[in-house]
Formats: sequence, structure tokens, C-alpha cells
Amino acid sequence: MKKTVLSSGYAGKLFEQIYDYLLDRIRRGEWKPHEKLPSIRSLAMEFNVNRLTVFKAYQLLKENRIVEAKDKSGYYVRPDGSLPVDSLHDPIISAYVHESHLSEIHQVQAEYVLSKSLLDPNLLPNLYFSEYVKQVFDLYPKMLGTYFTAQGDHELRDALCRYFTDYHRFHLAADELLITCGSQEAMDLVARALVKPRDAVMLERPTYSTAIDIFRRQGAAIVPVEIHPYGYDLEQVEKLMQAYKPRLFYLNPTFQSPTGYVVPAEQRKRLVELAERYQCLLLEDDPYRDIYFGEEPPLPLFAYDTAGWVIYLRSFSKYIAPGLGIAIVACRPSIMNYLIKAKLLSDSGTPLVNQKIFLHYFFSERLQQHMEKLRIALAVRKDIVEQELSATDWQWNSPAGGFNLWVKLPETVEIERLLSTCIKQSITFVPGAICDPLKEYKSWIRLSYSYLNEQLLREGILRLVELVDGGSGSSKKQ
Amino acid sequence: MKKTVLSSGYAGKLFEQIYDYLLDRIRRGEWKPHEKLPSIRSLAMEFNVNRLTVFKAYQLLKENRIVEAKDKSGYYVRPDGSLPVDSLHDPIISAYVHESHLSEIHQVQAEYVLSKSLLDPNLLPNLYFSEYVKQVFDLYPKMLGTYFTAQGDHELRDALCRYFTDYHRFHLAADELLITCGSQEAMDLVARALVKPRDAVMLERPTYSTAIDIFRRQGAAIVPVEIHPYGYDLEQVEKLMQAYKPRLFYLNPTFQSPTGYVVPAEQRKRLVELAERYQCLLLEDDPYRDIYFGEEPPLPLFAYDTAGWVIYLRSFSKYIAPGLGIAIVACRPSIMNYLIKAKLLSDSGTPLVNQKIFLHYFFSERLQQHMEKLRIALAVRKDIVEQELSATDWQWNSPAGGFNLWVKLPETVEIERLLSTCIKQSITFVPGAICDPLKEYKSWIRLSYSYLNEQLLREGILRLVELVDGGSGSSKKQ
Repeated sequence: MKKTVLSSGYAGKLFEQIYDYLLDRIRRGEWKPHEKLPSIRSLAMEFNVNRLTVFKAYQLLKENRIVEAKDKSGYYVRPDGSLPVDSLHDPIISAYVHESHLSEIHQVQAEYVLSKSLLDPNLLPNLYFSEYVKQVFDLYPKMLGTYFTAQGDHELRDALCRYFTDYHRFHLAADELLITCGSQEAMDLVARALVKPRDAVMLERPTYSTAIDIFRRQGAAIVPVEIHPYGYDLEQVEKLMQAYKPRLFYLNPTFQSPTGYVVPAEQRKRLVELAERYQCLLLEDDPYRDIYFGEEPPLPLFAYDTAGWVIYLRSFSKYIAPGLGIAIVACRPSIMNYLIKAKLLSDSGTPLVNQKIFLHYFFSERLQQHMEKLRIALAVRKDIVEQELSATDWQWNSPAGGFNLWVKLPETVEIERLLSTCIKQSITFVPGAICDPLKEYKSWIRLSYSYLNEQLLREGILRLVELVDGGSGSSKKQ
Repeated sequence: MKKTVLSSGYAGKLFEQIYDYLLDRIRRGEWKPHEKLPSIRSLAMEFNVNRLTVFKAYQLLKENRIVEAKDKSGYYVRPDGSLPVDSLHDPIISAYVHESHLSEIHQVQAEYVLSKSLLDPNLLPNLYFSEYVKQVFDLYPKMLGTYFTAQGDHELRDALCRYFTDYHRFHLAADELLITCGSQEAMDLVARALVKPRDAVMLERPTYSTAIDIFRRQGAAIVPVEIHPYGYDLEQVEKLMQAYKPRLFYLNPTFQSPTGYVVPAEQRKRLVELAERYQCLLLEDDPYRDIYFGEEPPLPLFAYDTAGWVIYLRSFSKYIAPGLGIAIVACRPSIMNYLIKAKLLSDSGTPLVNQKIFLHYFFSERLQQHMEKLRIALAVRKDIVEQELSATDWQWNSPAGGFNLWVKLPETVEIERLLSTCIKQSITFVPGAICDPLKEYKSWIRLSYSYLNEQLLREGILRLVELVDGGSGSSKKQ
């Protein structure tokens, strides 16, 4: 484990240095278009690094269209390699996004969308909602002409404060809440305000792939932590905290994405103790909490935190009003000050309209009734997928909540090849490697049962199983 | 000029290095709490830098509560100086925001708000708007349950595309438009996607202070460009582009904030040529275009650009619907790709509700009629301020549009002292130094006439003039 981490940590840093070194010299014109670049071997000697490291730098230059490779003979400066538009962006993120191509998968117009961990819009009480909203505009006739603050509407923060206190036993003041435009903005604000380049950041593996992108863009050295059906190996977590002094651990302990695993209450308490001992912030992402199929999940880590090391991130867009994009961050004032400063520069605040609509909808009778129906509808869809998969030799742990199934396919199946076949057949899913900071989990996929209606879901899974049994993506076929 | 720029460029870099060096050693515990730190003199010798540079680093450590200064005897490690929450953030931004304290000024609850370059909400057709919005929810009953894309609603982009083509002679496709949550998010996305640490970025002086914060946070070396009532000194602009190869020039050529100056059409054409020749992107911020008191302003720079070096940023929140927070970025695909990638990570997109409401309101008959009234109302308020100032020896250029008056006070007046006196009297304004990357313009202030009604505006200016005449902030008083 440790070895992997170290290499991932340092390799990342080194190959980027070499990337920058080469890019600068090309831009300064020391190597002209069409000119041949030093061999991997010679650069590896020059920098006294592994050839693989130089190779990675060259790969990145290739992806960013700065150089081109000519078989056998080496790398050459592209004629247009010095145009700014080819070199404007941060290599860390662009290379990564390129690798992960999650956004590409989401852009595919497929009939059987098993890749989107999003709620089927037909499961929302849209018509009722639409009528309801009109009352909100009667309540605040001047809403659209009102300026909003960076931290968020006070009425909404007061209401959420009471909610978190009543339902999650938080000890909280309204000033310890920040309203953001969705959970991604919240994660990004935390990363920008609290993580510096080269800081170590712990991520679960597998994890929410966007988290990998966000923290890598911030220049963090990623320290992966396995998550298991029973939670984490806390001894390993402690060893990692000791070894890497991480600034922050991003975790999704409740119906985790993609696995659906739940970290037990006992581990939550101990995690908070570890965080305090090793001064490692815990960023607790909790978007699926209300989507439980059996009993309610354990309390958030934030409820156990007294020293202020937990930052609680709660998104409601997943199942309340995707069109509103509202998320909430709870943290202590010392940290809140930095988040507000970051928010002040990244946008002037979350639009008031969205906050007021959310406020009155979220606390309505109607929504609370609706949540019950929603849980049942999603449990049914999950069962459908599990029924259809029961005939296969695929492996998964049946999730007790959330939107996703984390499935292991036979090792003979090449996931990337399967995906391209599926896309041709109008089926999409998420390859496991995208959810892994180390890009492994080659035989795993994430299947979301939240987006399709029951019939399409059943059909989609059936077709997927057929394609795998039919040998698509099977390595035998090579 | 050049000298200032260089020193600002390098000093910034150096003092941050020294800051990081000291911070790391304090965190590693090499200097314990209460321990005395090396003298400025010795560090200046150690690093072979100017003492002022070391002083700046220590100032920053002091601001960030890592060290404390004891008169005469030097700097000491604060007992809590090693707590992460004191050292989590990016020194560039925090120091700057601290310096500029613009947000602090805006947080003051004053009766005479001359500091906010925002529209008086009572000038908006709020009640009509509120009714109008309800129709939008009838049009899109499922809107709140609909997921939105990173680039923005296609219907809105199509409509804006036609608008920009008809009114500004843009040659544009819907895919060359990005919808953001307000202009600040747009600026931030451009900075993150296109500016790397240590890139040179040209800024007008004076300029919109948030722009200084955003580009400094990105680690850019700021290259200031004077703006005059007649525009820029284009020879100087060319010299700077030659000397510093800036990645980008952020400019606000139409009713510029804070000055209200307008860059003439002839200069716009030449600027676009210079941008192309020196491969310097032009980020054209255009929030005041529709607020003209006489004839319409010249076409945006974007209209003259054929090679794709202009990024056009148009915010409508200033005067259409602050509560919606909608801004638009127009740029060519090569750049749009990077902005979309950045947007995908910073939030998943601008909420659909806001876009649809904006779409139907912006293109309504009613709004176009309203704009005419708005221009008259603002012209009247501007005249009020100028009447009240006519008796003084203060200097300003009467703006032909926008929200602000850029005023030079007698040099005997100490602006910072005047501001604190004013705040006690419930009056706020923006000190000129905040709008200057070099922190000069010690005798200038920005007075916004957009936020107060006519009576409060007149009273506020009268009181301000009295306070200055009464000698508040006058250095004689020291």
C-alpha cells in the first residue's frame, strides 16, 4: 500500500516538473517545430529518474498536442505546439479529465443510461412543485431584485440549523452554515481554501471520480484509502495519517459512491478521534443519506466532532430539486472564514431565488411524504437490477441505500472494450477505473439504477448481460 | 512604469517564497511558540534580498496570525501559530483581501451607501417580474426536476446568439457561449482555465478590485496599464506586451469601473490587432453597456476580433435581475473547451431555473421599455451627485454611462481616515487605492450613484462634502 502511495505521490510531482521543463523550452523556442526532442533514455539520465517518469511527461505533452510521436524514431515538436491555446491549461486536470472521460460518457445520448448517478426526473413531484413555487414568488415579490450574500440566505440557514439539530444531533449556529450552488462548488471551495499544492489528501478507493479531479487540480498528492463493506481498516488509516500528515480526508461514509457501503457508527467515532489527533480535516460528503431502503443510516461524523475537524457537505440536488442546485456546508467558524473568502471570489453568492424556493419546498409537508415514496421507488429499481444480475457470476454487495451498484465482472472482460460496444448499443455505465485514484479496479463497473424507469432499467441490464455473455469486451476475442 | 511593474512582479514572488520558507519551519517546529525569529536584517542577508521583501513576508505572517511583533525587539512565533486553520489558505489572496477590505466596507450597514456599484432594487419592476416568472413555470412545469448542462441552456444560448449578432454584429454560434452564475464566476473560470502561476496579466489602473484579487489568487504577475479619459496609451500597451508577453489583458472598455471612461472605437480595433500580434488574450468585461446617458457606446472589442483573441464577458445581473445572477461568456471553441472543463469541476452548471427565467424576461417587451426608464433614472442620480459636488474643488470626468463617479479629493485629505469618519456617520464609499493594483491613487474615491434613491443620494453627498470641508481625514488634523 504505502509503496504505491509514495510512488503515486512523487511520480505525479516529478513527471509534472519534467513536463513543465520541456514545455517551457519548447515555448521559448529552444526546440523548433518539427525538431526532434531528447530521447526518453537521455532525459531519464539527465534528471536521474525512472524512464517511465519521462515517458509520462512525453505522454502528457502528446495529449496536449505540444509534441507528436513518430514510431521508433521518438518525439518531435508539433508545428502548432507553441500556440497558447494548446498550453493554456493546467496539465494536471486536463490530463486527468482526458484519462477519466467521465464527462464524455455522460454526453453520450443513450437509451439505457446506467452511468448517471442522478434521479429519474419523473420521480419528482414536478407539477405540484411548479405550482408551489408560485407561492414563493408571492411571499417574496422583490426576490429577483434582491442582492444575496456570500454565505447564503439567513432564513434558510436558520431553518437548516434547526433541521440538522433535530435530525442529526448537530450542535450548530446559522453562521456555521454556507449555501453553495451544488455540492461540486462546495468541494471546490474547500479544496481551494484549505488545500495547497503538494498537500497530501486522502481519498477513498473507489471514490467519486470528480473528487479525484478536484483535488488533483489543486495539486494535492493523493493518498488512497481502501473502503470495504465493513468500512475502513482504521489501523491503515492511522498509519497513513502518521506517514503523510494529510491536510484532509475526503470521505462519503453513508451509501458511498460508487460502492454503496456504509461506515459503521463505531468507526465514525474513531475516525473523528484520529482526525483530531493527526490534525487531518475530514470532508464528509453526504448526498445519499435520505435514500435508505431499510433502517436509517448512522449519524454523520459531524455529530461526533467536538474539536472542529469535520466539514459536513450535504447536497439536496440529487433528489429534491436538481434544477435548483443547492448544497450546504457545515463547519466551524475558523474554517468558515476561509470558505466565505473563497466564495466571495469564485462567485458573489448562491442566487437568492434558488435558496428561497428550496427553503419552502424542503420544509413542506408534501416533500416529507414524497421522500417515503421515493425510497420505495428506488428500492424497487435496485431489486430489478439485482434480479437480472442474479443469473450471472458477477459479484456485488447489495446496497442498503443510494443510487448505485458496484459490480465485479469476470476478469476475462475488458471493461473499456465492453463500454465502447455498449455505447454502440445505446447503453452507458461507468468503468471502475474512473473511480480509482490509482486507475485500477479493471474488472469493476458502477451501475446506477436511479435514472431509468423500471422497464428501461430491466431491458438495459438484460442487454448489458447479453453483451458480456456474448463475449463483447471479452479478452478471448482479441 | 516598467520599473514599478518589474518590482511588483518579482517582489510578489520573492516575499511569498520567504513567507513559505518561514511558515514551513515554524510548522515543522524548528521555531517553537514564543521563540524569537531571525531579524529582518539577517534574513535579508541570508536570502540576499531587500529588507522590505523580508518585512512583507513577516507582515503576512503577522496578518495570518502565525507570528506576533513585539515593539523594537522583533518577531515571535505565536503560541497557536502552528494550528492548521491559521495557515490553511493561500497567502496571496488572504493578504490581498485583507489589504483591500472591500468586502468589509460592503458589510457595513450604512444609510448612505455610496460604495455599492449595484442597482437600487426599487428601480426594478419587481412586482411585474414576480408575476411574469409564474408564466415561466407554466411553460416548463418540469424545470425544477431537470438536469442542466455545464455550458448552459441551449434555448437561452440560441436567443443570446441572435441578440449579440443583431445588436453587436458578433459572428457567433450558440456553442461559443457559456452561461455562468454571475460575472465573477466567469472571471474566475477564465483565470483558472487560462492563467498559470507567474503568467503576466495586464490590468487597467484603476480597475475593478475583484479582478485584482482573482488574478492575484491565480498567482499572476500583475502588469498595470493606465486608463485615461481618452482610453489607453497604445504605445505603452504595445511596449508592455513586448516586454512581459502577458497571457491576458483584463479590460472594461465601456463605462469602465471605477472611472466611467470609454475606450474609443479606433483604439478598440488597434487593441485587437495588438492582441493578435503579441498573442495576448483580451478579457473584455462589459457589464455597463446598456447604461448609457447619451448615445450608445462603441461596439465591443469582440466585434472586431477575427482571430479569436477576445473573450467577451457580459453580465446582466447588475440591472436586470440581481437575484438571478446570470452572466454570459462568448469566446472561440479552442478556449471554450477549457472553460467548460473548468466549469465542470467548479460546479456542474448554472441552475436551469435561473436561465429560463432570465431568457423569458430579458427578451420581453416589458424589459426593453424598462431599460429606457432605467437609463433616465440613473442619469438623474448622476446629475444630483455632480450638482452637489460642483461647489467643491474635487475633480472628476462626467461619465457618459455606468454607475460610478471617479473623484479626486484635495491631497490634504487622508482617504482612509475620511472613510472611518464616514462609516461612523453611516456613509460608505470605495477608496481609490482598492481599485489600483499598485495601491496608489491615495486621493481618489469611487462614488456609486446607482444604489440610493435621489433624496438619500443628495443627503449622503452633502454630508460627505461637509465632513471633508470640516477637515475630517485632513492631514492638518494630525
